[in-house]
Amino acid sequence: MKLFNKVAIIGVGLIGGSIALALKKKKLANEVIGVSRHKKSLLLAKKKGAIDKGSKELDIVKDADLVIFATPVKTIINLAPMISKVVSKNCIVTDVGSTKKEIVSMLSKIFPNFLGSHPLAGSEKRSIVNAELNMFKGTQCILTPTKRTTSKAFNKIKTLWANLGANVIILSPETHDKILSFTSHLPHVAAFSLIGIVPKEYLKFASTGLRDTTRIATSDPKLWVDILLTNRQNLVKNIGLLQNKLSKIKKALQKKDNNLLNLILKQAKEKRDSLG
Amino acid sequence: MKLFNKVAIIGVGLIGGSIALALKKKKLANEVIGVSRHKKSLLLAKKKGAIDKGSKELDIVKDADLVIFATPVKTIINLAPMISKVVSKNCIVTDVGSTKKEIVSMLSKIFPNFLGSHPLAGSEKRSIVNAELNMFKGTQCILTPTKRTTSKAFNKIKTLWANLGANVIILSPETHDKILSFTSHLPHVAAFSLIGIVPKEYLKFASTGLRDTTRIATSDPKLWVDILLTNRQNLVKNIGLLQNKLSKIKKALQKKDNNLLNLILKQAKEKRDSLG
Repeated sequence: MKLFNKVAIIGVGLIGGSIALALKKKKLANEVIGVSRHKKSLLLAKKKGAIDKGSKELDIVKDADLVIFATPVKTIINLAPMISKVVSKNCIVTDVGSTKKEIVSMLSKIFPNFLGSHPLAGSEKRSIVNAELNMFKGTQCILTPTKRTTSKAFNKIKTLWANLGANVIILSPETHDKILSFTSHLPHVAAFSLIGIVPKEYLKFASTGLRDTTRIATSDPKLWVDILLTNRQNLVKNIGLLQNKLSKIKKALQKKDNNLLNLILKQAKEKRDSLG
Repeated sequence: MKLFNKVAIIGVGLIGGSIALALKKKKLANEVIGVSRHKKSLLLAKKKGAIDKGSKELDIVKDADLVIFATPVKTIINLAPMISKVVSKNCIVTDVGSTKKEIVSMLSKIFPNFLGSHPLAGSEKRSIVNAELNMFKGTQCILTPTKRTTSKAFNKIKTLWANLGANVIILSPETHDKILSFTSHLPHVAAFSLIGIVPKEYLKFASTGLRDTTRIATSDPKLWVDILLTNRQNLVKNIGLLQNKLSKIKKALQKKDNNLLNLILKQAKEKRDSLG
Protein backbone atom coordinates (compact mmCIF):
# COMPACT_ATOMS: atom_id res chain seq x y z
CA MET A 1 0.00 0.00 0.00
CA LYS A 2 1.27 3.42 -0.85
CA LEU A 3 1.94 6.01 1.86
CA PHE A 4 -0.87 8.25 0.53
CA ASN A 5 -3.75 7.84 -1.90
CA LYS A 6 -4.37 11.39 -3.14
CA VAL A 7 -1.92 14.19 -2.35
CA ALA A 8 -2.80 17.80 -3.10
CA ILE A 9 0.04 20.32 -3.40
CA ILE A 10 -1.01 23.94 -3.04
CA GLY A 11 1.59 25.89 -4.98
CA VAL A 12 3.78 23.99 -7.46
CA GLY A 13 6.88 26.17 -7.30
CA LEU A 14 10.46 25.16 -6.46
CA ILE A 15 9.62 23.31 -3.22
CA GLY A 16 6.05 22.18 -3.99
CA GLY A 17 7.13 21.03 -7.44
CA SER A 18 10.10 19.11 -6.06
CA ILE A 19 7.89 17.35 -3.49
CA ALA A 20 5.37 16.46 -6.21
CA LEU A 21 8.13 15.14 -8.46
CA ALA A 22 9.52 12.95 -5.66
CA LEU A 23 6.04 11.66 -4.69
CA LYS A 24 5.40 10.56 -8.27
CA LYS A 25 8.84 9.17 -9.11
CA LYS A 26 9.18 7.34 -5.78
CA LYS A 27 5.58 6.09 -6.12
CA LEU A 28 4.64 7.34 -2.64
CA ALA A 29 1.10 8.33 -3.71
CA ASN A 30 -1.51 6.99 -6.12
CA GLU A 31 -2.40 10.46 -7.31
CA VAL A 32 -0.72 13.88 -7.06
CA ILE A 33 -2.80 16.99 -7.66
CA GLY A 34 -1.45 20.50 -8.12
CA VAL A 35 -3.14 23.80 -7.34
CA SER A 36 -1.70 27.05 -8.69
CA ARG A 37 -2.83 30.48 -9.83
CA HIS A 38 -0.44 30.09 -12.74
CA LYS A 39 -1.67 27.86 -15.56
CA LYS A 40 1.89 27.75 -16.93
CA SER A 41 3.23 26.20 -13.73
CA LEU A 42 0.54 23.52 -13.80
CA LEU A 43 1.26 22.68 -17.43
CA LEU A 44 4.99 22.45 -16.78
CA ALA A 45 4.44 20.39 -13.61
CA LYS A 46 2.35 17.93 -15.61
CA LYS A 47 4.90 17.83 -18.43
CA LYS A 48 7.67 17.11 -15.89
CA GLY A 49 5.59 14.23 -14.50
CA ALA A 50 5.28 15.94 -11.12
CA ILE A 51 1.45 15.98 -11.03
CA ASP A 52 -1.38 13.93 -12.53
CA LYS A 53 -3.83 16.81 -12.65
CA GLY A 54 -3.74 20.52 -11.97
CA SER A 55 -6.28 23.26 -11.42
CA LYS A 56 -6.67 26.87 -10.36
CA GLU A 57 -9.77 25.82 -8.40
CA LEU A 58 -9.50 24.64 -4.79
CA ASP A 59 -12.32 22.10 -5.29
CA ILE A 60 -9.84 19.70 -6.88
CA VAL A 61 -8.37 19.13 -3.39
CA LYS A 62 -11.55 17.23 -2.32
CA ASP A 63 -10.91 13.62 -1.15
CA ALA A 64 -7.18 14.24 -0.65
CA ASP A 65 -5.70 12.36 2.33
CA LEU A 66 -2.70 14.71 2.37
CA VAL A 67 -2.61 18.44 1.63
CA ILE A 68 0.75 20.23 1.45
CA PHE A 69 0.79 24.03 1.47
CA ALA A 70 3.82 25.23 -0.53
CA THR A 71 2.98 28.87 -1.27
CA PRO A 72 4.43 32.04 0.29
CA VAL A 73 3.65 32.26 4.03
CA LYS A 74 0.84 34.83 3.84
CA THR A 75 -0.84 32.89 1.02
CA ILE A 76 -0.82 29.77 3.23
CA ILE A 77 -2.59 31.74 5.95
CA ASN A 78 -5.10 33.15 3.43
CA LEU A 79 -5.88 29.86 1.69
CA ALA A 80 -6.08 27.59 4.75
CA PRO A 81 -9.67 28.51 5.79
CA MET A 82 -10.90 27.89 2.22
CA ILE A 83 -9.13 24.53 1.94
CA SER A 84 -10.55 23.48 5.33
CA LYS A 85 -14.05 23.74 3.84
CA VAL A 86 -13.15 21.33 1.03
CA VAL A 87 -11.21 18.54 2.77
CA SER A 88 -12.41 15.96 5.29
CA LYS A 89 -11.48 16.10 8.97
CA ASN A 90 -9.30 13.01 8.50
CA CYS A 91 -7.10 14.68 5.91
CA ILE A 92 -3.50 15.13 7.01
CA VAL A 93 -2.19 18.64 6.40
CA THR A 94 1.29 20.12 6.40
CA ASP A 95 3.07 23.17 5.00
CA VAL A 96 6.62 24.07 4.03
CA GLY A 97 6.60 27.69 5.20
CA SER A 98 9.87 29.28 6.36
CA THR A 99 8.33 30.63 9.55
CA LYS A 100 6.25 28.44 11.81
CA LYS A 101 4.70 30.27 14.77
CA GLU A 102 1.89 32.11 12.94
CA ILE A 103 1.19 29.28 10.49
CA VAL A 104 1.11 26.55 13.15
CA SER A 105 -0.99 28.66 15.48
CA MET A 106 -3.64 29.14 12.81
CA LEU A 107 -3.57 25.88 10.86
CA SER A 108 -3.53 23.62 13.95
CA LYS A 109 -6.85 25.19 14.93
CA ILE A 110 -8.64 24.56 11.63
CA PHE A 111 -7.13 21.22 10.59
CA PRO A 112 -7.46 18.37 13.16
CA ASN A 113 -4.48 16.52 11.61
CA PHE A 114 -1.99 19.31 10.99
CA LEU A 115 1.80 19.27 11.51
CA GLY A 116 4.09 22.07 10.36
CA SER A 117 7.20 21.27 8.27
CA HIS A 118 10.16 23.34 7.15
CA PRO A 119 12.55 21.64 4.76
CA LEU A 120 15.91 23.49 4.87
CA ALA A 121 16.34 23.07 1.14
CA GLY A 122 15.95 25.15 -1.98
CA SER A 123 17.83 28.25 -3.01
CA GLU A 124 17.32 31.81 -4.19
CA LYS A 125 15.97 30.26 -7.41
CA ARG A 126 12.26 29.67 -7.73
CA SER A 127 9.54 28.04 -9.87
CA ILE A 128 8.78 24.52 -11.04
CA VAL A 129 11.44 25.09 -13.72
CA ASN A 130 14.13 24.49 -11.07
CA ALA A 131 12.31 21.67 -9.24
CA GLU A 132 14.43 18.58 -8.62
CA LEU A 133 13.66 14.99 -7.67
CA ASN A 134 16.48 14.90 -5.10
CA MET A 135 15.95 18.40 -3.67
CA PHE A 136 15.57 17.05 -0.09
CA LYS A 137 18.14 14.24 -0.14
CA GLY A 138 20.53 14.65 2.79
CA THR A 139 18.97 17.96 3.87
CA GLN A 140 17.36 18.78 7.22
CA CYS A 141 13.60 19.02 7.61
CA ILE A 142 12.29 20.62 10.79
CA LEU A 143 8.90 19.41 12.09
CA THR A 144 7.11 21.58 14.66
CA PRO A 145 4.54 19.55 16.62
CA THR A 146 2.42 21.07 19.38
CA LYS A 147 0.16 19.58 22.07
CA ARG A 148 -2.60 19.40 19.46
CA THR A 149 -0.60 17.29 16.99
CA THR A 150 -2.12 13.81 16.48
CA SER A 151 0.20 10.80 16.35
CA LYS A 152 -1.36 9.93 12.99
CA ALA A 153 -0.30 13.26 11.44
CA PHE A 154 3.11 13.13 13.14
CA ASN A 155 3.95 9.61 11.94
CA LYS A 156 2.73 10.07 8.38
CA ILE A 157 4.49 13.42 7.83
CA LYS A 158 7.68 12.14 9.45
CA THR A 159 7.63 9.08 7.16
CA LEU A 160 6.97 11.32 4.14
CA TRP A 161 10.09 13.45 4.74
CA ALA A 162 12.20 10.39 5.54
CA ASN A 163 11.09 8.93 2.19
CA LEU A 164 12.13 12.15 0.44
CA GLY A 165 15.62 11.64 1.93
CA ALA A 166 15.51 14.39 4.57
CA ASN A 167 16.84 14.13 8.14
CA VAL A 168 13.93 14.99 10.40
CA ILE A 169 14.47 17.35 13.36
CA ILE A 170 11.79 18.15 15.96
CA LEU A 171 11.51 21.69 17.35
CA SER A 172 8.73 23.81 18.81
CA PRO A 173 7.38 26.49 16.40
CA GLU A 174 8.85 29.20 18.70
CA THR A 175 12.32 27.61 18.82
CA HIS A 176 12.23 27.09 15.06
CA ASP A 177 11.50 30.76 14.42
CA LYS A 178 14.15 31.92 16.88
CA ILE A 179 16.86 29.74 15.31
CA LEU A 180 15.88 30.52 11.72
CA SER A 181 15.84 34.25 12.43
CA PHE A 182 19.61 33.92 13.03
CA THR A 183 20.53 31.28 10.45
CA SER A 184 18.41 32.42 7.52
CA HIS A 185 16.18 35.47 7.96
CA LEU A 186 18.76 37.90 9.37
CA PRO A 187 21.34 36.94 6.68
CA HIS A 188 18.69 37.89 4.11
CA VAL A 189 18.06 41.23 5.84
CA ALA A 190 21.83 41.83 5.88
CA ALA A 191 22.21 40.94 2.19
CA PHE A 192 19.27 43.15 1.11
CA SER A 193 20.66 46.02 3.24
CA LEU A 194 24.24 45.68 2.06
CA ILE A 195 23.51 45.67 -1.67
CA GLY A 196 20.94 48.40 -1.02
CA ILE A 197 23.60 50.93 -0.02
CA VAL A 198 26.25 50.17 -2.67
CA PRO A 199 26.19 52.97 -5.27
CA LYS A 200 25.15 51.53 -8.66
CA GLU A 201 28.16 53.02 -10.45
CA TYR A 202 30.50 51.01 -8.18
CA LEU A 203 28.96 47.64 -9.01
CA LYS A 204 31.37 47.10 -11.89
CA PHE A 205 34.12 46.74 -9.27
CA ALA A 206 32.22 44.05 -7.35
CA SER A 207 34.51 41.37 -5.93
CA THR A 208 33.53 37.75 -5.24
CA GLY A 209 33.22 38.96 -1.63
CA LEU A 210 30.35 41.31 -2.46
CA ARG A 211 28.80 38.74 -4.78
CA ASP A 212 28.84 35.96 -2.16
CA THR A 213 27.66 38.21 0.63
CA THR A 214 24.66 39.50 -1.33
CA ARG A 215 23.72 36.46 -3.48
CA ILE A 216 20.54 35.80 -1.45
CA ALA A 217 19.35 39.34 -2.20
CA THR A 218 18.24 37.88 -5.56
CA SER A 219 15.52 36.01 -3.62
CA ASP A 220 11.86 36.74 -4.36
CA PRO A 221 10.82 39.93 -2.46
CA LYS A 222 7.16 38.82 -2.12
CA LEU A 223 8.21 35.54 -0.50
CA TRP A 224 10.62 37.32 1.82
CA VAL A 225 8.34 40.13 2.93
CA ASP A 226 6.02 37.39 4.23
CA ILE A 227 8.83 35.57 6.01
CA LEU A 228 10.25 38.71 7.61
CA LEU A 229 6.84 39.97 8.75
CA THR A 230 5.79 36.65 10.30
CA ASN A 231 9.08 36.48 12.24
CA ARG A 232 9.28 40.19 12.99
CA GLN A 233 9.71 39.99 16.78
CA ASN A 234 12.82 37.83 16.56
CA LEU A 235 14.13 39.85 13.64
CA VAL A 236 13.71 43.25 15.29
CA LYS A 237 15.77 41.91 18.19
CA ASN A 238 18.45 40.38 15.98
CA ILE A 239 18.76 43.40 13.68
CA GLY A 240 19.49 45.30 16.89
CA LEU A 241 22.24 42.79 17.79
CA LEU A 242 23.76 43.17 14.32
CA GLN A 243 23.68 46.96 14.62
CA ASN A 244 25.41 46.74 18.01
CA LYS A 245 28.16 44.54 16.59
CA LEU A 246 28.63 47.02 13.73
CA SER A 247 28.83 49.86 16.27
CA LYS A 248 31.53 47.96 18.16
CA ILE A 249 33.61 47.67 14.98
CA LYS A 250 32.91 51.31 14.09
CA LYS A 251 34.13 52.49 17.51
CA ALA A 252 37.23 50.28 17.32
CA LEU A 253 38.02 51.86 13.94
CA GLN A 254 37.53 55.37 15.31
CA LYS A 255 39.85 54.60 18.22
CA LYS A 256 42.31 52.75 15.91
CA ASP A 257 42.01 49.88 18.41
CA ASN A 258 44.06 47.22 16.65
CA ASN A 259 43.71 44.68 19.48
CA LEU A 260 39.94 44.92 19.79
CA LEU A 261 39.45 44.71 16.01
CA ASN A 262 41.75 41.70 15.87
CA LEU A 263 39.76 40.01 18.64
CA ILE A 264 36.38 40.63 16.94
CA LEU A 265 37.63 39.37 13.58
CA LYS A 266 39.41 36.36 15.10
CA GLN A 267 36.33 35.24 17.03
CA ALA A 268 34.18 35.65 13.91
CA LYS A 269 36.64 33.69 11.79
CA GLU A 270 36.83 30.86 14.32
CA LYS A 271 33.04 30.55 14.33
CA ARG A 272 32.79 30.65 10.55
CA ASP A 273 35.66 28.14 10.18
CA SER A 274 33.73 25.72 12.43
CA LEU A 275 30.91 25.78 9.84
CA GLY A 276 33.27 24.26 7.28
CA MET B 1 64.73 41.70 -23.96
CA LYS B 2 62.66 40.74 -20.98
CA LEU B 3 60.39 43.26 -19.27
CA PHE B 4 62.50 43.14 -16.09
CA ASN B 5 65.92 41.84 -15.16
CA LYS B 6 65.62 41.16 -11.42
CA VAL B 7 62.26 41.26 -9.69
CA ALA B 8 62.01 41.13 -5.89
CA ILE B 9 58.72 40.06 -4.34
CA ILE B 10 58.31 41.02 -0.70
CA GLY B 11 55.89 38.46 0.71
CA VAL B 12 55.36 35.25 -1.28
CA GLY B 13 51.79 34.48 -0.21
CA LEU B 14 48.71 33.96 -2.38
CA ILE B 15 49.13 37.14 -4.44
CA GLY B 16 52.92 37.56 -4.29
CA GLY B 17 53.37 33.87 -5.06
CA SER B 18 50.98 34.00 -8.01
CA ILE B 19 52.79 37.05 -9.46
CA ALA B 20 56.15 35.30 -9.02
CA LEU B 21 54.83 32.14 -10.70
CA ALA B 22 53.49 34.13 -13.67
CA LEU B 23 56.75 36.14 -14.01
CA LYS B 24 58.76 32.93 -14.19
CA LYS B 25 56.44 30.85 -16.35
CA LYS B 26 55.77 33.70 -18.79
CA LYS B 27 59.50 34.54 -18.80
CA LEU B 28 58.87 38.20 -18.00
CA ALA B 29 61.99 38.50 -15.82
CA ASN B 30 65.50 37.04 -15.84
CA GLU B 31 65.47 36.50 -12.13
CA VAL B 32 62.71 36.41 -9.49
CA ILE B 33 63.67 36.81 -5.83
CA GLY B 34 61.39 36.16 -2.88
CA VAL B 35 61.53 37.73 0.59
CA SER B 36 59.55 36.21 3.44
CA ARG B 37 59.71 35.78 7.19
CA HIS B 38 58.60 32.20 6.66
CA LYS B 39 61.32 29.82 5.45
CA LYS B 40 58.60 27.30 4.54
CA SER B 41 56.96 29.73 2.08
CA LEU B 42 60.30 30.39 0.40
CA LEU B 43 61.04 26.67 0.07
CA LEU B 44 57.61 25.98 -1.39
CA ALA B 45 57.85 28.99 -3.74
CA LYS B 46 61.15 27.66 -5.03
CA LYS B 47 59.76 24.13 -5.37
CA LYS B 48 56.80 25.50 -7.34
CA GLY B 49 59.24 27.31 -9.67
CA ALA B 50 57.89 30.71 -8.59
CA ILE B 51 61.24 32.10 -7.42
CA ASP B 52 64.92 31.51 -8.22
CA LYS B 53 66.15 32.47 -4.77
CA GLY B 54 64.58 33.36 -1.45
CA SER B 55 65.75 34.95 1.76
CA LYS B 56 64.54 36.32 5.08
CA GLU B 57 67.07 39.15 4.66
CA LEU B 58 66.15 42.35 2.82
CA ASP B 59 69.70 42.66 1.38
CA ILE B 60 68.76 40.15 -1.32
CA VAL B 61 66.59 42.86 -2.92
CA LYS B 62 69.75 44.81 -3.94
CA ASP B 63 70.07 45.41 -7.72
CA ALA B 64 66.40 44.65 -8.36
CA ASP B 65 64.86 46.79 -11.13
CA LEU B 66 61.35 45.98 -9.83
CA VAL B 67 60.21 45.53 -6.23
CA ILE B 68 56.66 44.33 -5.53
CA PHE B 69 55.31 44.62 -1.98
CA ALA B 70 52.81 41.80 -1.41
CA THR B 71 52.53 41.65 2.38
CA PRO B 72 49.67 42.85 4.62
CA VAL B 73 49.16 46.62 4.38
CA LYS B 74 50.84 47.60 7.66
CA THR B 75 53.85 45.41 6.88
CA ILE B 76 54.24 47.23 3.54
CA ILE B 77 54.32 50.54 5.43
CA ASN B 78 56.81 49.16 7.95
CA LEU B 79 59.17 47.54 5.43
CA ALA B 80 59.20 50.31 2.80
CA PRO B 81 61.78 52.59 4.53
CA MET B 82 64.15 49.63 4.98
CA ILE B 83 63.81 48.51 1.37
CA SER B 84 64.43 52.09 0.18
CA LYS B 85 67.90 51.92 1.75
CA VAL B 86 68.77 48.79 -0.24
CA VAL B 87 67.48 49.54 -3.76
CA SER B 88 68.68 52.12 -6.30
CA LYS B 89 66.69 55.26 -7.14
CA ASN B 90 65.97 53.83 -10.60
CA CYS B 91 64.20 50.79 -9.18
CA ILE B 92 60.50 50.61 -10.07
CA VAL B 93 58.33 49.86 -7.04
CA THR B 94 54.73 48.76 -6.71
CA ASP B 95 52.52 47.07 -4.12
CA VAL B 96 49.34 45.00 -4.16
CA GLY B 97 47.76 46.38 -0.98
CA SER B 98 43.96 46.42 -0.70
CA THR B 99 43.89 50.06 0.44
CA LYS B 100 45.82 52.73 -1.40
CA LYS B 101 45.69 56.17 0.23
CA GLU B 102 48.09 55.54 3.13
CA ILE B 103 50.43 53.31 1.15
CA VAL B 104 50.64 55.61 -1.89
CA SER B 105 51.10 58.68 0.29
CA MET B 106 54.09 57.12 2.04
CA LEU B 107 55.73 55.04 -0.69
CA SER B 108 55.54 57.73 -3.38
CA LYS B 109 57.68 59.92 -1.10
CA ILE B 110 60.46 57.40 -0.53
CA PHE B 111 60.58 55.66 -3.93
CA PRO B 112 61.09 57.97 -6.98
CA ASN B 113 59.53 55.36 -9.32
CA PHE B 114 56.55 54.13 -7.34
CA LEU B 115 53.03 53.29 -8.60
CA GLY B 116 50.37 51.64 -6.46
CA SER B 117 48.51 48.57 -7.75
CA HIS B 118 45.51 46.64 -6.48
CA PRO B 119 44.68 43.45 -8.36
CA LEU B 120 41.04 42.53 -7.67
CA ALA B 121 41.91 38.86 -7.49
CA GLY B 122 42.48 36.24 -4.85
CA SER B 123 40.06 34.83 -2.32
CA GLU B 124 39.66 34.16 1.36
CA LYS B 125 42.36 31.50 0.93
CA ARG B 126 45.96 32.46 1.54
CA SER B 127 49.59 31.31 1.23
CA ILE B 128 51.81 30.22 -1.64
CA VAL B 129 50.07 26.81 -1.41
CA ASN B 130 47.07 28.31 -3.26
CA ALA B 131 49.12 30.46 -5.68
CA GLU B 132 48.11 30.08 -9.32
CA LEU B 133 49.73 30.96 -12.63
CA ASN B 134 46.48 32.40 -14.03
CA MET B 135 45.32 34.17 -10.86
CA PHE B 136 45.05 37.53 -12.66
CA LYS B 137 43.76 36.40 -16.06
CA GLY B 138 40.59 38.32 -16.93
CA THR B 139 40.51 40.13 -13.57
CA GLN B 140 40.66 43.87 -12.94
CA CYS B 141 43.80 45.56 -11.65
CA ILE B 142 43.46 49.12 -10.36
CA LEU B 143 46.50 51.41 -10.70
CA THR B 144 46.57 54.57 -8.61
CA PRO B 145 48.97 57.15 -10.11
CA THR B 146 49.49 60.58 -8.55
CA LYS B 147 51.22 63.76 -9.78
CA ARG B 148 54.52 62.26 -8.63
CA THR B 149 54.21 59.10 -10.75
CA THR B 150 56.91 58.87 -13.45
CA SER B 151 55.92 57.74 -16.95
CA LYS B 152 58.63 55.06 -16.67
CA ALA B 153 56.99 53.52 -13.60
CA PHE B 154 53.50 53.91 -15.06
CA ASN B 155 54.32 52.23 -18.38
CA LYS B 156 56.33 49.37 -16.91
CA ILE B 157 53.77 48.51 -14.21
CA LYS B 158 50.88 48.80 -16.66
CA THR B 159 52.67 46.46 -19.07
CA LEU B 160 53.39 44.05 -16.22
CA TRP B 161 49.70 43.68 -15.29
CA ALA B 162 48.65 43.47 -18.92
CA ASN B 163 51.13 40.61 -19.33
CA LEU B 164 49.64 38.87 -16.31
CA GLY B 165 46.26 39.01 -18.11
CA ALA B 166 44.60 41.72 -16.00
CA ASN B 167 42.45 44.58 -17.31
CA VAL B 168 44.06 47.76 -16.03
CA ILE B 169 41.88 50.52 -14.54
CA ILE B 170 43.20 53.93 -13.47
CA LEU B 171 41.82 55.60 -10.33
CA SER B 172 43.11 58.08 -7.78
CA PRO B 173 44.10 56.50 -4.42
CA GLU B 174 41.17 58.33 -2.76
CA THR B 175 38.59 57.13 -5.30
CA HIS B 176 39.98 53.61 -5.06
CA ASP B 177 39.58 53.53 -1.29
CA LYS B 178 36.06 54.98 -1.46
CA ILE B 179 34.87 52.42 -4.02
CA LEU B 180 36.57 49.46 -2.34
CA SER B 181 35.09 50.41 1.03
CA PHE B 182 31.68 49.63 -0.54
CA THR B 183 32.54 46.71 -2.80
CA SER B 184 34.91 44.80 -0.55
CA HIS B 185 35.71 46.21 2.88
CA LEU B 186 32.14 46.79 4.11
CA PRO B 187 30.99 43.32 2.94
CA HIS B 188 33.80 41.91 5.09
CA VAL B 189 32.69 43.99 8.10
CA ALA B 190 29.12 42.76 7.51
CA ALA B 191 30.19 39.11 7.25
CA PHE B 192 32.37 39.28 10.40
CA SER B 193 29.51 41.01 12.26
CA LEU B 194 26.79 38.63 11.10
CA ILE B 195 28.57 35.39 11.99
CA GLY B 196 29.71 37.09 15.19
CA ILE B 197 26.17 37.29 16.57
CA VAL B 198 24.88 33.84 15.54
CA PRO B 199 24.76 31.62 18.68
CA LYS B 200 27.20 28.72 18.27
CA GLU B 201 24.55 26.10 19.07
CA TYR B 202 22.48 27.28 16.07
CA LEU B 203 25.29 26.78 13.54
CA LYS B 204 24.18 23.21 12.83
CA PHE B 205 21.06 24.66 11.18
CA ALA B 206 23.11 26.92 8.88
CA SER B 207 21.58 27.27 5.43
CA THR B 208 23.49 27.99 2.23
CA GLY B 209 22.27 31.57 2.77
CA LEU B 210 24.23 31.95 6.00
CA ARG B 211 27.21 30.14 4.48
CA ASP B 212 27.36 32.38 1.39
CA THR B 213 26.78 35.56 3.35
CA THR B 214 29.59 34.86 5.81
CA ARG B 215 32.12 32.97 3.66
CA ILE B 216 34.55 35.91 3.62
CA ALA B 217 34.62 35.88 7.44
CA THR B 218 37.12 33.03 7.02
CA SER B 219 39.60 35.63 5.75
CA ASP B 220 42.83 36.27 7.66
CA PRO B 221 42.08 38.64 10.60
CA LYS B 222 45.61 40.13 10.62
CA LEU B 223 45.31 41.04 6.93
CA TRP B 224 41.86 42.52 7.43
CA VAL B 225 42.58 44.55 10.55
CA ASP B 226 45.21 46.37 8.45
CA ILE B 227 42.80 46.93 5.56
CA LEU B 228 39.97 48.17 7.77
CA LEU B 229 42.22 50.50 9.77
CA THR B 230 43.83 52.07 6.69
CA ASN B 231 40.39 52.73 5.19
CA ARG B 232 38.69 53.63 8.45
CA GLN B 233 37.24 57.00 7.44
CA ASN B 234 35.29 55.57 4.51
CA LEU B 235 34.31 52.54 6.56
CA VAL B 236 33.00 54.46 9.56
CA LYS B 237 30.77 56.37 7.15
CA ASN B 238 29.59 53.26 5.31
CA ILE B 239 28.95 51.24 8.47
CA GLY B 240 26.68 54.13 9.43
CA LEU B 241 24.83 53.82 6.09
CA LEU B 242 24.39 50.08 6.64
CA GLN B 243 23.07 50.67 10.15
CA ASN B 244 20.58 53.22 8.79
CA LYS B 245 19.32 50.77 6.16
CA LEU B 246 18.92 48.12 8.88
CA SER B 247 16.98 50.64 10.99
CA LYS B 248 14.68 51.32 8.05
CA ILE B 249 13.88 47.60 7.74
CA LYS B 250 13.52 47.29 11.53
CA LYS B 251 11.02 50.14 11.63
CA ALA B 252 9.06 48.74 8.67
CA LEU B 253 8.83 45.41 10.53
CA GLN B 254 7.66 47.11 13.72
CA LYS B 255 4.98 48.99 11.76
CA LYS B 256 4.13 45.85 9.70
CA ASP B 257 4.63 48.07 6.65
CA ASN B 258 4.25 45.54 3.86
CA ASN B 259 4.59 48.11 1.06
CA LEU B 260 7.77 49.72 2.38
CA LEU B 261 9.40 46.34 3.02
CA ASN B 262 8.46 45.19 -0.46
CA LEU B 263 9.98 48.35 -1.95
CA ILE B 264 13.26 47.98 -0.04
CA LEU B 265 13.61 44.31 -0.98
CA LYS B 266 12.63 44.88 -4.61
CA GLN B 267 15.16 47.69 -5.09
CA ALA B 268 17.86 45.54 -3.47
CA LYS B 269 17.00 42.55 -5.66
CA GLU B 270 17.05 44.65 -8.85
CA LYS B 271 20.52 45.96 -7.99
CA ARG B 272 21.83 42.51 -7.11
CA ASP B 273 20.29 40.99 -10.25
CA SER B 274 22.16 43.57 -12.34
CA LEU B 275 25.41 42.15 -10.94
CA GLY B 276 24.63 38.81 -12.57
